[in-house]
Amino acid sequence: MGMTMTQKILAAHAGLPEVKAGQLIRAKLDMVLGNDITSPVAIREFEKEGFTGVFDKSKISMVMDHFTPNKDIKAAEQCLQCRTFARQFDLDNFYDVGQMGVEHALLPEKGLVAAGECIIGADSHTCTYGALGAFSTGVGSTDMAAGMATGETWFKVPEAIRVHLTGKLQPWVSGKDVILHLIGLIGVDGALYQSLEYCGDGVAALSMDDRLCIANMSIEAGAKNGIFPVDAITRAYLDGRVNRPYTAYEADPDAEYVRTVEIDLSQIEPTVAFPHLPENAHPISQVGQIKIDQVVIGSCTNGRLEDMAVAAKLLEGKKVADHVRCIVMPATQHIFQQCIDLGYLSTFISAGCAVSTPTCGPCLGGHMGVMANGEKCVATTNRNFVGRMGGITSEIYLASPAVAAASAVAGFIADPRN
Amino acid sequence: MGMTMTQKILAAHAGLPEVKAGQLIRAKLDMVLGNDITSPVAIREFEKEGFTGVFDKSKISMVMDHFTPNKDIKAAEQCLQCRTFARQFDLDNFYDVGQMGVEHALLPEKGLVAAGECIIGADSHTCTYGALGAFSTGVGSTDMAAGMATGETWFKVPEAIRVHLTGKLQPWVSGKDVILHLIGLIGVDGALYQSLEYCGDGVAALSMDDRLCIANMSIEAGAKNGIFPVDAITRAYLDGRVNRPYTAYEADPDAEYVRTVEIDLSQIEPTVAFPHLPENAHPISQVGQIKIDQVVIGSCTNGRLEDMAVAAKLLEGKKVADHVRCIVMPATQHIFQQCIDLGYLSTFISAGCAVSTPTCGPCLGGHMGVMANGEKCVATTNRNFVGRMGGITSEIYLASPAVAAASAVAGFIADPRN
Repeated sequence: MGMTMTQKILAAHAGLPEVKAGQLIRAKLDMVLGNDITSPVAIREFEKEGFTGVFDKSKISMVMDHFTPNKDIKAAEQCLQCRTFARQFDLDNFYDVGQMGVEHALLPEKGLVAAGECIIGADSHTCTYGALGAFSTGVGSTDMAAGMATGETWFKVPEAIRVHLTGKLQPWVSGKDVILHLIGLIGVDGALYQSLEYCGDGVAALSMDDRLCIANMSIEAGAKNGIFPVDAITRAYLDGRVNRPYTAYEADPDAEYVRTVEIDLSQIEPTVAFPHLPENAHPISQVGQIKIDQVVIGSCTNGRLEDMAVAAKLLEGKKVADHVRCIVMPATQHIFQQCIDLGYLSTFISAGCAVSTPTCGPCLGGHMGVMANGEKCVATTNRNFVGRMGGITSEIYLASPAVAAASAVAGFIADPRN
Repeated sequence: MGMTMTQKILAAHAGLPEVKAGQLIRAKLDMVLGNDITSPVAIREFEKEGFTGVFDKSKISMVMDHFTPNKDIKAAEQCLQCRTFARQFDLDNFYDVGQMGVEHALLPEKGLVAAGECIIGADSHTCTYGALGAFSTGVGSTDMAAGMATGETWFKVPEAIRVHLTGKLQPWVSGKDVILHLIGLIGVDGALYQSLEYCGDGVAALSMDDRLCIANMSIEAGAKNGIFPVDAITRAYLDGRVNRPYTAYEADPDAEYVRTVEIDLSQIEPTVAFPHLPENAHPISQVGQIKIDQVVIGSCTNGRLEDMAVAAKLLEGKKVADHVRCIVMPATQHIFQQCIDLGYLSTFISAGCAVSTPTCGPCLGGHMGVMANGEKCVATTNRNFVGRMGGITSEIYLASPAVAAASAVAGFIADPRN
């Protein structure tokens, strides 16, 4: 029996010729990631275990992105703890306010993750890097601590679901609509501890930003990871960013999958996930008129350049509805700069958006756009759980940047195609 | 005995031919201001008193600037309360996220305050508008409530200090250095319940942004208000912004002053106020080497276009020191747009600054750059009280945008002239 793409990467990192679903393995790590919320817990664990060094100072990333610029004294103290640790062990990849971005946008941009690598991060959306053909997954802070010290961790080799993509997205439809549609099909536990292995002719028609978004939200179907094959688009993205050799693993033709999900990309509409689960996906044509109070465009899911471009295109020459606050957050300093250069930032300001420095902020109700009770938000973020972005009776509608920008102008959830 | 400029404005608004220092008067108001922290208290008071209407919907401003974009649920609920009130009474000047700016930068910019007017605001830095030749002062939320309902309030007519300015500022020296120098001379209670009446040949050499900064921090010497004569610079600023008649009051030649403070502008160095009082002013040549962790450039004191320009000039082609977070906050959406157009924003991003949407945030330890214990910050804000920007053992050094930007690059408090 052959191996999936994920299984091949895990086998290689475990030094084994073959692994099987369910097998426990110990794998070498190419990158260990933490942020300003999870790293302090990992650091405490690291110290408690008596570790005295890190396995490789070039293979640990700490990104101060969640509650920064520091939202309160606790956030400041947590960043200080990370900063002190990073200096103590001379970490190459400590990213502070002014240098940083939302971690899962930053690491690919900086070339810190690449095809064929094995990556853990103390953040659930670490699965983002599957877009590059890497195995990457979220872990707890204890695993992060041990990973920083030993450069290894344990995995149970996951089973896989084959997501077979065909066709080509219609205009104003993007990766976000694909993943919301998929989660709508299989449910928030539809891929529990399984790999979502994206494949098929449709992949070639998906941009890297689309793939990053789809891989990013694979966890919202419960997946251990989401992964894309390595093709010309992947290589175009990696070349110039990654200056170490990387490996493009391919699934064996006889790899085993627990199921196959077929998706014809051409049939996907702009899609909105209603409160309070990402699986509550509705095609925009069936949404009805829902008045909103806030729009958030950004996050590790949709804060990349293509996301900004589509939002700018829809906001160009328009005004955000009077009763709506629209907060736009380019996900990294570099994307922020590109948004200046390409005129997007001017468009956002002219339209009446608040433009934020890169931060995870509002996505997890941290800061920079928390909602009052009863308020409704269209957000390009990844989770619409009860109270995640504010008051317990506030509501989050997950959507693409296109739907979000169109909604900001309309004042209610709107179809970007109109 | 003649009247000071302040006394003339108060007399006119009280409908009296003359007022004297110490006299209690009831004055008509041209503008009543509140923000997202103070307005909710005023609204509760307004409702408790049973008021059913506002005196003039064009003469009340509410600006959501302090804890916005909402830093938490409480902030969101407070903004919602203001928004609901503003809709109920159809207020012309409610400024929400995306439309707003820091209140004391926004109101002059929008032409909502003008020479000769009488303005109260439930915020201590309401004295800013004295730069335009207005009488303006901070009040409590109860006074704001009564002001919104009746369009009047009580004042005790203040005594005055004459601040006689001569000469011309040296390069890299600005209004901030003047006001820190003045507070250093007279102390934080040096002008308690008195008017600081700026006059002399030196005024003509001060830009409007310099004057706004000086008037803004007059409260930090305990002053009831600070006020500048109306000259060509004032008129150039007001014309095109204010489309109602305004009055340029002049102090009588025989107006009474409790004292005169002479300041030769040409003798002022870049000045830094050490923790924990604005009166701890030191010329930069005597500061010594103080390593810093954070720089904040912005606020109602120094978030205007000239402030951004001087910061950009010093950061152009430079990098923020590795151990420093530098947070730049253009004070209004309009200034933010100007910073894009003039290339300042690109400069800030290239230098490694975090650029924030307009907010008061870090100035009062609200969000967007709160400090950990033991950290040191150079801030262009207005107060360096114990723990104001974060942990109780954190330290704030108040300075101009020039000193702040130079310090961001140097990594310690630095002289912008070097």
